Amino acid sequence: MKIPENYKVLFLQAGASAQFAMVPLNLMKRSGTADYVNTGAWSKKAIAEAKKLGIDYKVVASSEDKNFSYIPENIDIGSNGSYLHITSNNTIFGTQWANYPNTGNIPLVADMSSDIYCRRFDPDLFGLIYAGAQKNAGPAGVTIVIIRNDLLDRSPENIPTIFNYKIFAENNSLYNPPNCYGIYIVGLVMKWILDQGGIDKVEAVNKKKADLIYKTLDGTDFFKATADSKSRSIMNITFRLPSEDLEKKFIADATAAGMAGLKGHRSVGGVRASIYNAMPLEGVESLVDFMQIFEKQNG
Amino acid sequence: MKIPENYKVLFLQAGASAQFAMVPLNLMKRSGTADYVNTGAWSKKAIAEAKKLGIDYKVVASSEDKNFSYIPENIDIGSNGSYLHITSNNTIFGTQWANYPNTGNIPLVADMSSDIYCRRFDPDLFGLIYAGAQKNAGPAGVTIVIIRNDLLDRSPENIPTIFNYKIFAENNSLYNPPNCYGIYIVGLVMKWILDQGGIDKVEAVNKKKADLIYKTLDGTDFFKATADSKSRSIMNITFRLPSEDLEKKFIADATAAGMAGLKGHRSVGGVRASIYNAMPLEGVESLVDFMQIFEKQNG
Repeated sequence: MKIPENYKVLFLQAGASAQFAMVPLNLMKRSGTADYVNTGAWSKKAIAEAKKLGIDYKVVASSEDKNFSYIPENIDIGSNGSYLHITSNNTIFGTQWANYPNTGNIPLVADMSSDIYCRRFDPDLFGLIYAGAQKNAGPAGVTIVIIRNDLLDRSPENIPTIFNYKIFAENNSLYNPPNCYGIYIVGLVMKWILDQGGIDKVEAVNKKKADLIYKTLDGTDFFKATADSKSRSIMNITFRLPSEDLEKKFIADATAAGMAGLKGHRSVGGVRASIYNAMPLEGVESLVDFMQIFEKQNG
Repeated sequence: MKIPENYKVLFLQAGASAQFAMVPLNLMKRSGTADYVNTGAWSKKAIAEAKKLGIDYKVVASSEDKNFSYIPENIDIGSNGSYLHITSNNTIFGTQWANYPNTGNIPLVADMSSDIYCRRFDPDLFGLIYAGAQKNAGPAGVTIVIIRNDLLDRSPENIPTIFNYKIFAENNSLYNPPNCYGIYIVGLVMKWILDQGGIDKVEAVNKKKADLIYKTLDGTDFFKATADSKSRSIMNITFRLPSEDLEKKFIADATAAGMAGLKGHRSVGGVRASIYNAMPLEGVESLVDFMQIFEKQNG
């Protein structure tokens, strides 16, 4: 997957949290709003940061009405946005954009922290992509930014230098001492993707992993997927059991069987299987086996 | 060397360059100026950042009149400063504060990026200390901040969250994914200091290393130290030879003999021996031997 020549890849620090501020500080036009789609906790953080900084922002679509169980289809893109910000994958609610919106002249900005390199994507659709590396791309402490060259001209001169995309682009991400070791590890992870046969092979494995779990969920009334079927994430799969007691038992028994981290986020409860690139197919097969045995014994 | 209980140690990212913005954005009082002592290139960067951000700043002392060859003694501390910012060691000009100024009620802020842990220091003198870890404390990508608790109350709410000292203090530096590996390496470097016998032993070795070179410089007219004798750095030792041609030959011959990185910064020319904590005494002894032979052959 090549990054087109009219884009620049930057290696920054301080994660998505820094980008929540950098995106509006760099991309706001003199007139125009900062437009956001609210699909969950991380979208909310991005919106809260724009609000905190006194940016003129607008939530143009939201799935909060159904506890973020779906990705909105009707987005009021309008013509006045400086950019449109989306969160490509929502870790807590188990949703993921299946198709990215066509935003025309308005640059689409995506926080891909939790699903970059899980599948092929078309960079041309985006004005800016950012991702904390720590899920699919490397260690915590590196942030990848892919920005379309023309947007670099928007960076104002009076923002903190360390926040200025243009200065980092001009200095090839070497404006200040970079997280060398972290970037080196990102390079090794990119080689690992190539060793798997490239991004399409990684995507195929990820889809197979997700399909295995979703088929198990859909094949019974005992388990129930929480995300709308058209918005299901292949990275974070969230589901419920018939009762909270059974969910507790499921998580405890799974932990005892060597499968950790299955507890859902407290804001949604239930169970969450996070199956990032590093989770092998065998791990998912073990989980599905466990789910079927658990249902037989407790269903 | 214990950090007093009324201070908090934070681990941040993005280096001194981020601190140049964070210090004024967090510490400015409603009335009051941001006061700076200008002792070289890094002080200038800190001042330029305050200027860029529209901060009401004041340069209260400077050694620019003599190409930054000394640390100013007369500082107009005044009573209106929100803080007084100094650069404790100046890598390019080979100067270092021998004694820190007593700033009374005005918090002293020090960029210690290039000399933290080279010697014992009294944290009580400071309101805030910051240091990119990459010289004496660990790898690039980690920034250490030591801040007096009462100053945390100055952080305004409308600055970028990732810039807010108070939020990082409240979250024990875990507001967002930290540079875990980098912080782990900082821990190993701290253990290494303890293994050397503690900070006083490290300081003694550093002083011995610096003394060896300065004695060689002072014992001849062939070499000439550029820093004022009262302001000499024990981390970066800058000196000149009788001609630029001899300097070129010195650097080339030293490189051939296995001693790299001796070229002075282009803004001062000459020779620079950077002898951070990681440089063993034996390395300095080799350099001094080489200097004496070079003088005999070329003097």
